[in-house]
Parts: sequence; structure tokens; C-alpha cells
Amino acid sequence: MAGSPRRASGRRLQLPLLCLLLQGATAILFAVFVRYNPETDAALWHSGNRSSSDNEFYFRYPSFQDVHVMVCVGFGFLMAFLQRYGFSSVGFTFLLAAFALQWSTLIQGFFHSLHGGHIHVGVQSMINADFCAAAVLISFGAILGKTGPAQLLLMALLEVLLFGVNEFVLLSLLRVKDAGGSMTIHTFGAYFGLVLSRVLYRPQLEKSKHRQGSVYHSDLFAMIGTIFLWTFWPSFNSAPTMLGDGQHRTTLNTYYSLTASTLSTFALSALVGEHGRLDMVHIQNAALAGGVVVGTSGEMMLTPFGALAAGFLAGTVSTLGYKFFTPVLEAKFKLQDTCGVHNLHGMPGVLGALLGVLVAGLATHEAYGDGLGSVFPLIAEGQRSATAQAMYQLFGLLVTLTFASVGGGLGGLLLRLPFLDPPPDSQCYKDRIYWEVPGEREDEAQGSLRAEETDTRA
Amino acid sequence: MAGSPRRASGRRLQLPLLCLLLQGATAILFAVFVRYNPETDAALWHSGNRSSSDNEFYFRYPSFQDVHVMVCVGFGFLMAFLQRYGFSSVGFTFLLAAFALQWSTLIQGFFHSLHGGHIHVGVQSMINADFCAAAVLISFGAILGKTGPAQLLLMALLEVLLFGVNEFVLLSLLRVKDAGGSMTIHTFGAYFGLVLSRVLYRPQLEKSKHRQGSVYHSDLFAMIGTIFLWTFWPSFNSAPTMLGDGQHRTTLNTYYSLTASTLSTFALSALVGEHGRLDMVHIQNAALAGGVVVGTSGEMMLTPFGALAAGFLAGTVSTLGYKFFTPVLEAKFKLQDTCGVHNLHGMPGVLGALLGVLVAGLATHEAYGDGLGSVFPLIAEGQRSATAQAMYQLFGLLVTLTFASVGGGLGGLLLRLPFLDPPPDSQCYKDRIYWEVPGEREDEAQGSLRAEETDTRA
Amino acid sequence: MAGSPRRASGRRLQLPLLCLLLQGATAILFAVFVRYNPETDAALWHSGNRSSSDNEFYFRYPSFQDVHVMVCVGFGFLMAFLQRYGFSSVGFTFLLAAFALQWSTLIQGFFHSLHGGHIHVGVQSMINADFCAAAVLISFGAILGKTGPAQLLLMALLEVLLFGVNEFVLLSLLRVKDAGGSMTIHTFGAYFGLVLSRVLYRPQLEKSKHRQGSVYHSDLFAMIGTIFLWTFWPSFNSAPTMLGDGQHRTTLNTYYSLTASTLSTFALSALVGEHGRLDMVHIQNAALAGGVVVGTSGEMMLTPFGALAAGFLAGTVSTLGYKFFTPVLEAKFKLQDTCGVHNLHGMPGVLGALLGVLVAGLATHEAYGDGLGSVFPLIAEGQRSATAQAMYQLFGLLVTLTFASVGGGLGGLLLRLPFLDPPPDSQCYKDRIYWEVPGEREDEAQGSLRAEETDTRA
Repeated sequence: MAGSPRRASGRRLQLPLLCLLLQGATAILFAVFVRYNPETDAALWHSGNRSSSDNEFYFRYPSFQDVHVMVCVGFGFLMAFLQRYGFSSVGFTFLLAAFALQWSTLIQGFFHSLHGGHIHVGVQSMINADFCAAAVLISFGAILGKTGPAQLLLMALLEVLLFGVNEFVLLSLLRVKDAGGSMTIHTFGAYFGLVLSRVLYRPQLEKSKHRQGSVYHSDLFAMIGTIFLWTFWPSFNSAPTMLGDGQHRTTLNTYYSLTASTLSTFALSALVGEHGRLDMVHIQNAALAGGVVVGTSGEMMLTPFGALAAGFLAGTVSTLGYKFFTPVLEAKFKLQDTCGVHNLHGMPGVLGALLGVLVAGLATHEAYGDGLGSVFPLIAEGQRSATAQAMYQLFGLLVTLTFASVGGGLGGLLLRLPFLDPPPDSQCYKDRIYWEVPGEREDEAQGSLRAEETDTRA
Repeated sequence: MAGSPRRASGRRLQLPLLCLLLQGATAILFAVFVRYNPETDAALWHSGNRSSSDNEFYFRYPSFQDVHVMVCVGFGFLMAFLQRYGFSSVGFTFLLAAFALQWSTLIQGFFHSLHGGHIHVGVQSMINADFCAAAVLISFGAILGKTGPAQLLLMALLEVLLFGVNEFVLLSLLRVKDAGGSMTIHTFGAYFGLVLSRVLYRPQLEKSKHRQGSVYHSDLFAMIGTIFLWTFWPSFNSAPTMLGDGQHRTTLNTYYSLTASTLSTFALSALVGEHGRLDMVHIQNAALAGGVVVGTSGEMMLTPFGALAAGFLAGTVSTLGYKFFTPVLEAKFKLQDTCGVHNLHGMPGVLGALLGVLVAGLATHEAYGDGLGSVFPLIAEGQRSATAQAMYQLFGLLVTLTFASVGGGLGGLLLRLPFLDPPPDSQCYKDRIYWEVPGEREDEAQGSLRAEETDTRA
Repeated sequence: MAGSPRRASGRRLQLPLLCLLLQGATAILFAVFVRYNPETDAALWHSGNRSSSDNEFYFRYPSFQDVHVMVCVGFGFLMAFLQRYGFSSVGFTFLLAAFALQWSTLIQGFFHSLHGGHIHVGVQSMINADFCAAAVLISFGAILGKTGPAQLLLMALLEVLLFGVNEFVLLSLLRVKDAGGSMTIHTFGAYFGLVLSRVLYRPQLEKSKHRQGSVYHSDLFAMIGTIFLWTFWPSFNSAPTMLGDGQHRTTLNTYYSLTASTLSTFALSALVGEHGRLDMVHIQNAALAGGVVVGTSGEMMLTPFGALAAGFLAGTVSTLGYKFFTPVLEAKFKLQDTCGVHNLHGMPGVLGALLGVLVAGLATHEAYGDGLGSVFPLIAEGQRSATAQAMYQLFGLLVTLTFASVGGGLGGLLLRLPFLDPPPDSQCYKDRIYWEVPGEREDEAQGSLRAEETDTRA
């Protein structure tokens, strides 16, 4: 009974109060802890004797902007494929990003940039916060349409925290390389979301099945997301790498990997499609797997051929996953993965981590020359062999899977708290429960939409 | 009688002649006055002994591009929420921007970069021209749907001129700080448009009421505008600031302010919505108020906490404005504000100006160190106290409100010239009067569209 | 009989096999030939004694990203105006771009950056590859809706090769200037596609006439393409120019040229429209002609006035072309040009080449100073007079027209190979033959879509 007075009044207050509470808390923590770093503080910057053109802003900000567009435009519209859930897809992406950017500034700041009790912020922390928001939005994809905004904010509250811990363990303790986040972002976000979705399993979800597909124009909106993600992914993987050749090489590898995953996605989609027809779900998602799969190895000497091979493999695995694995996940494992994040972020993320193990294990002084120190400082300093670095990389993957699974389980339990008011099975994948929707009035809500052209996705 | 032969023939010639006349005039003025500046002129650049990498292009162009996207994509699609006015929203944005960019190059050039009788142009003048176009597009938002393209071009002709005068008074005479234009762009553009809309008040506008709302997909198109504006706003506020820490700090402040205005917008929208439902109008607009409110103070030492607080306040005021103030404006003050620019640009712009007064008044040598000279040169040189600078800032706001109101009034009188052929009350918010619209033929035009899903906005 | 078992099974395997074959071939060639250049290779970069900030990445990557967005988002959505061909427009753009980027890396690499038997890649080669993809997508526009994906891939296979040859002749042998590609990209791509379309002439195409137009929302999707192209075109023309003043000046010229073509497009569209109404086709396309027309001369000392004049002329010619010339092309010359690439790329490209002849012929030491060497090295070194350079420019145009026409003819013959399975006349401009389309099932396919709002374009 979505319309009962008590629930309506509960919902009325729940989201506002949670937003205000979270905003109040982060604001207080910002007041106490967050300060401009030496590149953004007027006094600190001018006390150094540096030229304006040395400011890190000029080397990182264009990449940051591309990442920012990917997080907000890319993820938001990619999830807008659902025929009657576009407001929520785009709107809740916006809400989750806004909160996650603040909260992860704090969490990542405590772990990575605490100076004299203060968190220092600048363009690097902005990139890192956007990366964390990306992980949260990946998890959102797994449970898209089945949760309310208050639940999502609580998920973000927990996930940002665990993201920070996992990233700290990998990057600072294990000294693992993972610039583009095959592990820390994609694997973590995907498995966190998947386990969470498993805990929230809804056996009666076929009640909303007819809204679980796209309509013609919603698929085109989703392609806006896809193409901005595809276009800017080279900036995503390279945003936090070492300046110079590292950043340059990462963009090149990502660029080629994405072209190959696009070709393999078209090939496989037509091959497995009825009458050889292409499936928009594959194109929208699997074509991007090439970006995910070089998230770890993109800054390494992967070689252009290596990038093509990796992308090709990722597009193949991802497309086959959508076709054959997603239905099995739901039927056998009771895992409802709305956007197929397992296919776009989960498997390609794990593949990317393993590729990182391989490429790190092959690192030689000959291949990297004096640049070895900027990619693998511990190998260059003789503290680790390439094989040891590879083992650490592998261990990082296992740590990530563990944190993600345990975290997702905890998240699921948290989101099942009864007062959180999830949408009933019959109201999933539908904006109307959370939004004023033009053209729909209360009395029409029980009926079906006249103009609804429906389709169901596998 | 939109279809009467004389009016149709008048319209047929009015827009073409005006476009040709304006283009001819600016072209002649360009030929006489406009020259490459020393950073874009082959001979002048190479006569200096500078490395290519010193060219200002590399420090300003990425920000310029973001601003350019905001002006064309952001404003254009943000206004495309109307169900049957999308062609006009996006198309007239395009037309107005094209003219305003040329015309403001001349006007701003006369005021700011006249060298030996010539206007020098380069990336800075491009940024400034885009800023002026933004102000014109804000005013467009207030009268969206109620004016024809010839009227709009005349509005731009006048507004660009007054924008240039107001900006000259503030920045060059009063030496006020306003990098992101809380005053010069947002306050000016909003109140110019609002007063103009008041002069053009249409008591019979409810004849078009049923087209004054959105449909499902038009709201998603509008979200494209919103999210690009949100994502690139840090570049907008920082585009013309001092290089180095100034530009870097401005992006950071704007980034955090926007996250806070997004959270407060979601909180307030759900709080005041029927059954706790969110309203797309609020999300599309009020979530952006955080960018407006730090337009003046973003380059100052606002602190990250200050940015959050400012954004939170702006989102709150803006959402409440849409809910409670816009209906009052129309009912009591006969002010029809189609896009609610009073809520997104007017009130947050004034708040932003006042925040600038406050933060300027608190400026100390201690907080800014040797950077004081780049933010507040007059204070650093001892020519003004911080309190005096604050008073000048406040005076700048009053000057802006005066210029905007008088200019908007004049603009309204200009646009009421009878031969300008405004759309009749029954044809407002409708593309068909100015555009060939697919699927609509002459004989259908009097009837209602079959598939029209209608909704009215407050 | 699109549904006959043999054809369906043929189609089922054709696209996958072609994708896999092409990807396999380029991957092998990448393994053998493609290597990181000294700016992207860890060992090579660090063996030089350069600061990270000198890496070419920081001077070219932001422009590259804008170009990349134009190719994928811009061209893709610009072609999405067709009411039932949006999946194909956006999807095949994606597929063609992915393949062309790989293949042109190889072709252009053989011609331009072979070092010791290896092709060196970095941000410059990425820009060049995107430029070549743009030419392929221009040709796609001429045959949009009338060809299948396997045909398109074969077209790209041939066109990329000839693009590389033509570009090599112009830039390396004739030493012609053409940074933004008025000749190499626009003229070449347009006439290649037009001749190809002529060879594929379909006399019975009116069977699909009712799908050859737009619907309301498909026109808005197309405007996404238009506005991103318009906004980023300054980056397109300037991406490969000399650093410093050259790049800066090119952006400025392109920016002004586009504003003028927009104004002349609105003027002419209203002038020639029924009842003075504007036509979306003109706005979506002709407004962009200002970018095309300064592709050659944008880096020269065109002067801001020259940019306005050029843009004005291009917008005029392009709009008149859509109105009067396109119908004649089809009726008299049996040339079906779906997107009107003759009006947007063909005529403005030729005009741009001629403008390049003129501006190169006027080059003097006085106007360029010591910068003459960076724009016209042969004139600065005394090896050519300005007039001689102008003649070479003109000859370059003739060479381009020849390569494009002959290539397009060959391409047409190639695409007529019978096993390539083109869509039947009655199935043109329709996604369903190649895509799973939501809401359409096999049994509905013969009938017309209920909600189809139709319109036909001239």
C-alpha cells in the first residue's frame, strides 16, 4: 500500500531528514578538518617561489573535468535506459554523487592526505572523490529500480567508508598499482552491489517485469551515457597517474582497448542475437569493457597490441555475460542485477586485475628504462622483484573481493531495516513513487500507461 | 490570427532582415576595430621571445571550452523542458549566443581592451563574450515561450550593451571582484529579464497553460542541460580568475558548493512536495544554485566549509522560491517567469553578491599571505581597507540591480513595438509558429496534439 | 524477403565474421608495427632529460578530447534525426569509429610516422586517427539508412586507405596547408560518400519515404550532435596546428566563423521557409558550415573579419543547398544524400579550400613576421612564393576531388557485391532489420508503427 497515510508521511520526512543530517554532519567535519592544500591556498602557494604555470591545476584539471562528466552524465544517462525510471536514474545518480563527493573527501582524506590533523584538498582529492562516487554508482546499477533514495544514501554512507579502507590497504599498505581502478573501483563497486542485491532478493519481482525494459527513446538517452563514458575513459584511467609519459601512455592504451572491445561487442552481439540482430544492451555496456579491463595495466608498458587484445577479450566476455550469465545469476543464484554490472564492471574488473598481475610480473628494467621508478618504485628501488609485485597485485584483488563481499552483505542488512520503506514489488522500476511525473495523476497510477511500449530485457 | 497573410509575410522578412542587418553591422565593426592580440597574432607573438608553451591558450582554453559547452548545451537544453517548445529553446539559444558573442566582443572590447584604437581578441575575450551571452540567455529564460526570435535579438542588442556598461562600472571603476559573475552575470541577467517580463505581462496567458509544463522525455532533455551545467560550473567561475592558486581554489569552492546545493534541493523538494515526492523542476534548477552563489566569493579564501554552507543555503532558498515565491510573483506582481530565473539566478545571485561582501570584508594579510595582491590588489597596496572593499562590493550590487531594472524596463518597451509580431496568447510555448514541426500540418494546428501528455508547472 | 532463412543466416554470420577478421588483422599489424613514441614510452621519455610538463600530452590532449567527443557524440547524434534509425545512426557511428581509429593508425602511420620500421603512436596520431574517422562518418552521412553494417565496414576499409594516400600527397608531397581538413576531411569525405551513394542509387527508395524524416524528439537528439560539434569545432581545426599562436588563432577564427554561419543560416532558413518558418534541418547542419569553411585558412592570418565573412558565406551556401540543390541532386543526378553532406561538408569544404588558396596567396612577411615560418615554412625559407603556395593549395583541392571521386566509385562497386546483403528498399531508414527494437515484435514488423509521427524531408 504505497499510498497509505503513515507510509506517505514517513517517506515525506525520511529523505529530507537524512539529507539534512548527512549534510550537517559532513559540513561540521569539513569545518573541523578540511583545509586548502598548498596548491589552492593563497598564502601557502605564494609563500613558495613558484610560477602560476607550475600549479598542479594545469596538469590535472582537464582530466578531472572529463572524469566529472563521466560520473554525472555518463553513469546517469547510461542507467536511463529503463522506460519509466529515467528521472530516478539521472536524479538519484546526481544525489548519490553529491553526497559521495563530500563524504569521500573526508574518508579518503583521513587515509591519504592528513597533514597536521587537517585534510588537504585540491584537484587530486577531487579526482579521488569522483572515483569513489563512480564505485557507488556502479553498485547503484545492480539495485537500480528496487530501492528508494534514503536506502541509496545509506548504501553510499557505508560503501564510501569501505571503499576508503580497501583503497588504503591496496595502495598504501600493499603498494599495489591500480590507477584506473580495475580493482578499487570496478571490482569493488560491482561485487559490493551484487552481494547487496543478493541480500535484497525479491522473488516476486516479475510483477514489475514489464517495466524492466527500455523504449526506443530511453535507449537513445542511455547511448548519451555510453558515448560520453567511451570518449572520456582515457581521461579516467590516466587522471591519477604520474605526470608525463605515464599519463600519456595510459590514455593511448585505454583508447585502443575501447576500440577493440567495441568491435568484439558488435561481433558477439550479432552472433548470439536472434536473426543476427544487435542488442542495444550489449552496445550500451559491453563496448565499454575495454576501459575497465586496462584500469590497472593502462599505465604500464602494456603495448598497443596488448591494449587491443585486452579490450577484445573484455568485450567478448562482457557480451557473453549479458547473453548467457545474467539469466543464470537470477535463476540459480537469486541475484537480480538490473544493469548487468557483473558483465560491465565485475568480470572485466577481475580480468583487468589479473592483466595487471601479468603485466607487472613482466616488468623489466629494459622495458621501462629510467621510467621504472615512476611506475613501479619498489621494483626500481630493489625492494621487490617483478614477481613479488605481481603477487601483491593478486593479493590486492583478493582483498578487494573480500571487502566488497562483506561490505555488500552488511549493506544489504542495513538496507533491509524495515523503516527504510523500499518500493513494493509492483512499484519497482517506476519513477512515480518518488517523483512528480508529468501526465500521470493519482487516479491513473494503478492502471497501465497508455503509450507504454514495453519490452523485457534478459 | 497567426495565419493572416500580412503577418505571415511580415514575419517572413523580419527575422531574416534583422539577422542580416545585425551581422552586416558587426562585420563592418569587426573589419574596422577587431585585431588579433599579441597571443594570437603571428607577427606579434613571434616578435616576443617566448616559448609556445607560455601562450595563454594553454592556461585558459580548457576552461573556455567548458564555459562554451555550458552556454550552448547547458542553457539550451535546460530550457528544453517545455513539451512543445524544444526547437525554440535549443534553437533560439543558439541564435542568441551566436549574435551575443559577436556583439559583446565589440562592446566589451571598447570598454576593456582597446589598444591604439583596436580591440584585441584572444581566449580571454572569448571567455568574456561567452559570459555576456550567458547573461542574455538567463534573461531569455524569464520570457521563454512568450517572445519571437526578432524580439529576442533586439533584447540581446540592448542587453549586451548594458551588460558591458555595468561590467565596466563594477570591474574597472569600482574595482569590485566578481570573477564568476554573481552580480555581473546572474543578478544582472535575472533582473533584466524579470523586469522585461513584467513589462510584457500577458493577462490571458492561461490560454497556453496546458503547454507550460513538461512531458517525460522533455524533462530528461532538460536534465542534459542541468548536468552539464553542474559538471562544468567550476570551470565557469574560475575561467577568468588569476592563474595558479586562484583558478585552482575557485574550482574547488564551486565543486563543493554545488554538492551542498544538490543535497539541500533534494531535501527541500521532498519536504514540500505532495506525498514527499521530488519535483523535477527543483532538481533541474535549484541544484545549480550552488554555482551561482559562489560566483563572487569563489576565488576568495571562502574555505571548503564556507562553500558547503553557501551552497546549502542557495539550494534551500532556490527550492523554496520555486515552490512558494514564483506563484506569488505571478499572482501579485504580474511577473511571469517561465524558467524561474528569479529562483536560480536572481536570489542566489544577490546572495552570492552579499557573500562576496562578507568574505571581502574578512580579508586579512594573515589569511591570504603574499597572495592578497592577486585577489585584492587594492587592499594589498594599502589603497583600501577590507571593510572599504566590502562596501564597494555592496555598492556594485546596487549598481547592478539598477542597471538591470532600468535596462529590463527599456527592453520591455522596445519589445512592445507593435511591428515585432509577438506570438498571440494562445500560441505561446509552441514551436509551430516559428518552426516547421514534423508530424504537424496546417490543418492539425488548431486542434490539440493526440499524443500530448500534459502537465502544468507552478 | 528480409526474413528468409538463408539471408537471415547469412546476415547472422556476416557482421561477426567481418568484425573478427578486421580486428584480427589490425591486431596482428599492431603487434608487428605499432610502438609507443618517445612521449609515451617509459624508457624513451625518461632517457631524455625533460620535465614531465614538457610532454606533448599537456598541449594536445584537451584538444584531442574535444575532437573525440565530436567524432563520437557529434556525428553520432547529428545523424540520429531519422525517426526510426537512431540505433543505427548512433550505433554504426560507434562501430565505424572504432574500426577506423585502429585502421587509420596503421595507414597514417605507414605514411607519416614510420621510424625504423615501426609506427610511433601518441596524442598526435590519436588526433589524426580521429580526423580520418570523421571523414568516414561524413561519407556515412550520404548513405545513411541505405546500407548495412558489413557494407559500412568495407567502405571504411577502403576509405581509410585512400584518405591516407590523399593526405600523404597533399601534406607531404605538395606541402599544402590544411590543418582543419577543409580538403582532406570534408571535401574528401563528402565527395567519396556522394559518388558512392550515386553508384548505389535506388530508384524505388520512395517505398521508405515515410521514414526518411524526423519526429519531434529525434530532432532534439540531433541537436545534441549539432551543439557539441558547434561548441568543439574550434578545437577540431586547431588540434594539429603549430603550438602557440597558431593553435590560439585557429580557435579564434573558427569561433567567429561559426557565429556568422549560424546567423546566416537562421536568416536564410526563415527567408526560404514556408510562412517564414525555420527548418530544423538547416539549423542542425548549415549552422556548422562555418567550421568547415575555415578548416584550411583558420591557422592563417585570416583576420577576425575574414572569419565572419567566410562563415556567413558558408552558412548561406549551405542553407540554400539544402533548400534548392538537394532535391535537384536526387531528381536530376540520381544522387540520394540522406544527411545532405554535400551542403554541410561538400560545398563548404570546397569553399574552404578556395579560401585557403586566397589567404595563402596573400601571405606576406609583413603580416606574419617571424611567424611566417611556422605557418608557411616553404615561403619563409624562400623555396616558394605566396602565389606558388596558393597554386599548390588549389592543386591539392583537385587531387582531393579526384581521389574522392575515384575512391567513391570503387567503394560503390565494392558495396554492390551481392552477398553483402543491403536492406531492401522497403526496409531502409529502419533499425529493426539490424537491431532488436523494444516494442516491436516479428508479427508487427510488416505493419506500420502505431505511434509513428511521420514527416518527410526534402
